[in-house]
Amino acid sequence: MIFGQVNDSLMIKKIFDETMSNGKCYEWLDHLANNIGGRLAGSEGAEQAVKYTKELMDGLGLDSVFLQELMVPHWVRGEKEYAEIVGLKEVPICALGGSIGTEIEGITAQVIEVKSFDELASIGIEKIRGKIVFYNRAMDPTHYNTFHSYSGAVGQRWAGAMYAAKYEAVGAIVRSMSLSLDDHPHTGSMGYSDTLKKVPGVAISTNGAELLSSQLKSNPDLKFFFKMSCKTLPEKVSYNVVGEIRGSTFPEEIIVIGGHLDSWDNGDGAHDDGAGCMQAIEVFRVFKSLGVRPKRTIRAVMFMNEENGARGGKKYAELSKLNHENHIAAIESDAGGFSPRGFGINTTTEQLNKIIKWQPLLLPYGIYNIGKGYGGVDINRLKDQGTVLIGLLPDIQRYFDYHHTSIDTFDKVNKRELELGGAAMAALVYLISVYGL
Amino acid sequence: MIFGQVNDSLMIKKIFDETMSNGKCYEWLDHLANNIGGRLAGSEGAEQAVKYTKELMDGLGLDSVFLQELMVPHWVRGEKEYAEIVGLKEVPICALGGSIGTEIEGITAQVIEVKSFDELASIGIEKIRGKIVFYNRAMDPTHYNTFHSYSGAVGQRWAGAMYAAKYEAVGAIVRSMSLSLDDHPHTGSMGYSDTLKKVPGVAISTNGAELLSSQLKSNPDLKFFFKMSCKTLPEKVSYNVVGEIRGSTFPEEIIVIGGHLDSWDNGDGAHDDGAGCMQAIEVFRVFKSLGVRPKRTIRAVMFMNEENGARGGKKYAELSKLNHENHIAAIESDAGGFSPRGFGINTTTEQLNKIIKWQPLLLPYGIYNIGKGYGGVDINRLKDQGTVLIGLLPDIQRYFDYHHTSIDTFDKVNKRELELGGAAMAALVYLISVYGL
Repeated sequence: MIFGQVNDSLMIKKIFDETMSNGKCYEWLDHLANNIGGRLAGSEGAEQAVKYTKELMDGLGLDSVFLQELMVPHWVRGEKEYAEIVGLKEVPICALGGSIGTEIEGITAQVIEVKSFDELASIGIEKIRGKIVFYNRAMDPTHYNTFHSYSGAVGQRWAGAMYAAKYEAVGAIVRSMSLSLDDHPHTGSMGYSDTLKKVPGVAISTNGAELLSSQLKSNPDLKFFFKMSCKTLPEKVSYNVVGEIRGSTFPEEIIVIGGHLDSWDNGDGAHDDGAGCMQAIEVFRVFKSLGVRPKRTIRAVMFMNEENGARGGKKYAELSKLNHENHIAAIESDAGGFSPRGFGINTTTEQLNKIIKWQPLLLPYGIYNIGKGYGGVDINRLKDQGTVLIGLLPDIQRYFDYHHTSIDTFDKVNKRELELGGAAMAALVYLISVYGL
Repeated sequence: MIFGQVNDSLMIKKIFDETMSNGKCYEWLDHLANNIGGRLAGSEGAEQAVKYTKELMDGLGLDSVFLQELMVPHWVRGEKEYAEIVGLKEVPICALGGSIGTEIEGITAQVIEVKSFDELASIGIEKIRGKIVFYNRAMDPTHYNTFHSYSGAVGQRWAGAMYAAKYEAVGAIVRSMSLSLDDHPHTGSMGYSDTLKKVPGVAISTNGAELLSSQLKSNPDLKFFFKMSCKTLPEKVSYNVVGEIRGSTFPEEIIVIGGHLDSWDNGDGAHDDGAGCMQAIEVFRVFKSLGVRPKRTIRAVMFMNEENGARGGKKYAELSKLNHENHIAAIESDAGGFSPRGFGINTTTEQLNKIIKWQPLLLPYGIYNIGKGYGGVDINRLKDQGTVLIGLLPDIQRYFDYHHTSIDTFDKVNKRELELGGAAMAALVYLISVYGL
């Protein structure tokens, strides 16, 4: 470690000590999750969350706190969904976000189980017409990085209803995106094609998927029934919430930190992504508590509508371009409030190497994995403005047990793990604010 | 990576894939925790756990499975403890392991709050006599490694009743060893001196400690009441449970893996240390499933009585010496079934460096931290036989929320995290079995 790094090391120790001793992000998350709860774009919860985080940042004595107005989709789940393997058993399902509902009497039809779109194509339209397509490709448990398991399966969720419609099926059932066998269906966004009929898309719990699959083996003609009243309403006005400490020396160089404020409606969005938002605000609290005035501007953004449209990220990038702002780096925390292990960075090799040189400063806090990676859905639109995109990488073994379910709740968050993630962001922000990129 | 490491890398990938796809340790732990439960040495649960793990290993087709008989202390909690700040509020307590009970009518006395034994000494016997000493030094939240926070506070638990007796107090209340503010008292072992009177030692929950402390500020004369019927019964016979696959080439070189089979009585000991035991047996299952016959002997040991006597570890080392066995390495998992992050190793620099050379093989699985460290309570007695002592280091941010409480239960264990720990041990055992130490 060189001399400058010794001072940096002391400053980073102060940042971690302050967060672990006096951190507020856990208490704030408790309020966001338990008092406000689910906050899908367009919902009452999302509106309250905008108000709450604005007030939180107003209370920290920042240089400015403001809203960015944008239009968001407004999808509502309606009444609780119901499904059963006809004559056998109710199974846990939930509508996929953006799906149309069923007719009021529901849908009853035979089921075609497939593992892929190729398999669906090989079965052909004649055998699929009028049935429900059941996508049952499980997430691959052999990836250490569970995001790889997720990306290997999530195409079924996004495009399943479209492919089902292409072969004239009446609906699509998708095995929940989870590595755990349990009774919690996982929602998440799905798409429709303008050129195809819209058919309902629904997630079934992993246990439900196992049951349905085994029943189909003994009785390929069984019928499945499901009913849901979800629908898309007219778009609504909503907001990104932005707070800022202006840099003392290079105020025009902006470092963005943030997460997304919206969440799915079925849980309280504690991990996805209340955690990231509260960690970003914690960064401000720590700088203020330690009396550190950063050389470069730090801006925390609570992005709206990541889950079903990413309109907040688009609006933010659009306004940045319009205002000729210079975002040197953007750090997003959107992989849950778990123990931090690294940063995944999307930039040039030269800039990446600059950040990798800071690795020894972060290693004492378990941050060992700094390397090429993905930034985050909300910040990725800044890419063409030359911004270094950085994603906080927490331990992600538990994430997909909770992701987009009714059990993504505050009690699944550990205070120290959440705080460590916030401190990791604060430490990296500190280094970038001193040395630039 | 050199050529040999490419092959090792493929083998380690197989080990992880097999564990993450077909691991059984989670299911076994479910049985141990939920069907057997708490298993303090001498208890019915401990007896059942011996039987269960012997049967488990018998079912794996090992070369031998056997018991090592030993005598264990037998302490029982008796009826549920009760405590209150007199006239104000009941507070959650539990007896410390090994404590005597109170008289049947309980103890009512004034309270002296201290943060250290030095502070107690400075107050002096005249002001302490007849009162209850309340040790309220919190674990330091600024250590990244929570074991350092623990070791900075646990002296109060171990020696608190002794020091209280030295100053003629009538009992000792100890703030629970936890970084979390909650209502769960943490038990754990405590000692008595042969030359001092025995007085009862009790843990109070962290919230209870905060309340008692704040009440003492406004009313230093308040009285505290507690009652408990715990006692020490005559010693009993119990067992270490040992399973073995004999090495094909160097059978006389033994690699021990294990955890401790006993747990405190208040929870079901899922993390402490059911996890470690089930991970050790998982190592065997993986070797058997992959058809790997190790060159060196692998022996899994479920040590008895780690929590309140460590008699199992002593007996194992004693028999090893008696039988002139050559233990080249011992790996203990006794820090919870969380995501593995490294190994802490107690050996010579030369041997440590040999293990550190394997680091690149384990890094893809998040094992980044291989260095000097502590082995484990059960294996440390092998030190003077020249054994390399190795402790599995999981992520330990959540550990002390559960440790020695009624909430150290199976639902706090994540399947993937538990399995990754087992796979990490299997990978290291594989490398040692091939290359020796």
